[in-house]
Amino acid sequence: MDIVNEIEKQSKVIDFYLMEIMKKRDDFNKIIFDAMEYSLFTGGKRLRPIMTLKTYSMFDDDLLKVMPFAIAIEMIHTYSLIHDDLPCMDNDDFRRGKPTNHKVYGEAMAVLAGDGLLNLAFETMSEHIYKNSKTELYFRRNIRAMKEISTYSGTSGMIGGQIMDLMSSFNNMDEEKLFYMYRSKTAALIQASIVSGAIIGGADSEDIRALRDFGLYLGLAYQIQDDLLDESQDEYINKFTYLRFHSIEEAEEKVADLSQDAINSLRSLKNRDIGFLKELTGYLIKRDV
Amino acid sequence: MDIVNEIEKQSKVIDFYLMEIMKKRDDFNKIIFDAMEYSLFTGGKRLRPIMTLKTYSMFDDDLLKVMPFAIAIEMIHTYSLIHDDLPCMDNDDFRRGKPTNHKVYGEAMAVLAGDGLLNLAFETMSEHIYKNSKTELYFRRNIRAMKEISTYSGTSGMIGGQIMDLMSSFNNMDEEKLFYMYRSKTAALIQASIVSGAIIGGADSEDIRALRDFGLYLGLAYQIQDDLLDESQDEYINKFTYLRFHSIEEAEEKVADLSQDAINSLRSLKNRDIGFLKELTGYLIKRDV
Repeated sequence: MDIVNEIEKQSKVIDFYLMEIMKKRDDFNKIIFDAMEYSLFTGGKRLRPIMTLKTYSMFDDDLLKVMPFAIAIEMIHTYSLIHDDLPCMDNDDFRRGKPTNHKVYGEAMAVLAGDGLLNLAFETMSEHIYKNSKTELYFRRNIRAMKEISTYSGTSGMIGGQIMDLMSSFNNMDEEKLFYMYRSKTAALIQASIVSGAIIGGADSEDIRALRDFGLYLGLAYQIQDDLLDESQDEYINKFTYLRFHSIEEAEEKVADLSQDAINSLRSLKNRDIGFLKELTGYLIKRDV
Repeated sequence: MDIVNEIEKQSKVIDFYLMEIMKKRDDFNKIIFDAMEYSLFTGGKRLRPIMTLKTYSMFDDDLLKVMPFAIAIEMIHTYSLIHDDLPCMDNDDFRRGKPTNHKVYGEAMAVLAGDGLLNLAFETMSEHIYKNSKTELYFRRNIRAMKEISTYSGTSGMIGGQIMDLMSSFNNMDEEKLFYMYRSKTAALIQASIVSGAIIGGADSEDIRALRDFGLYLGLAYQIQDDLLDESQDEYINKFTYLRFHSIEEAEEKVADLSQDAINSLRSLKNRDIGFLKELTGYLIKRDV
């Protein structure tokens, strides 16, 4: 499998369904849809929703059953980027080489575009569950997936991680807090992507547990790899990262260990094609951007 | 019925359940729960969740079935106030006589506290639906209520109204746009409160339609009454309100007409005790704060 080609192919599928959602715009709310669409389509790789689709595919093959959850996760990811970039947060003017949302649409609109995307994620899932749950079994799976996503994206997940990030500049920080931040800020939404795909696909509880572990290890490896990439850009010396507590060599070793833990978690799955997730793991820790 | 006492009594019930949710805090995310709790408990009357409980009570009496939706709506209402008050939005330093969230916790935390409350609203509903839907019928009602809430709070509802409010300062505005703004900014969340209570209670589609109309008329009457109250404070002469297009006398007449429309909608309900909602309508349009 050519992982780069496969990611590109899948990301086009995601783009198509995101575009469908953007058709909800009307004459009155056009401007906020423009703002949301701007940030949704600034060249992200769609890694999280692709993880959802690919995990689902290990258990079932009707992608329409999982698509609303996959694009909801991308909307949640995008809202978090828009709010992170705000002047009162990281105050970033550019993301992926393009002006950030508030630079184009102004701060007020950027706040509302973020709010709009978070709300739209839950609107999309709720609407799908209401319309397309044929039996009680599907209701249960669907609502469980939404519950998992809402927990991972919330104050005990992604938002909790953001808070820790905010605090990191002026609090006494230790490695335990660093790992809380990595787990919640980065790994949580990756776990949400993986676990929701498994749940909708009908995975049993052992497989869900294995994939939840996989998502955690992958998320942590991804984040420490990010630290290493930032470090080589000579920018983040004093930032609150793994490298405040460890040498570059130790960090590289940690990434390798975590990737191995991730792959070991996959191996405990019973008779499933783990090919894509395994290759993805290798791809993500070897990436240079 | 003494409506003022009843509202006070019910608001204490809402407070209790909101406090229960706040117990979700842990050592790491304590600060964001403090920020969310601060704005949740600044003396709001809990009108929206009370509407949910009272509408539900017209059809069923096990309040635990509807409580998660009622408090979710209060969380959504509160998040919208926190974000509205931000410096990039209305830049308000005080709300209900107390410093606004960003004045106490800083802008970054206020953005995240708003995000946290919106997310927590959906987390609360999802968790409840997952854990407490005993049969497919309850699944359907619960998910339908959540779908309605998410639509009314989203880009076609409350957020759409915010956008129109933002635009109102520099666009060519007409009375059609004003009513879009009133419908979506104010009436939508009131409709969400009423309609979700009816759905969870098991109302039939005719009763739901009547109550949806009631919520719309009540919301519009409430908003134009707000315009009149603001006007008498001599502050909002040039604001984009009903009074840009009509005299005070016409506005007073409109409030009376809309209240009558609201009460007429209630009268089409079949054998239900409309006492509270009727009194509430009278109370809201006669209020002086």
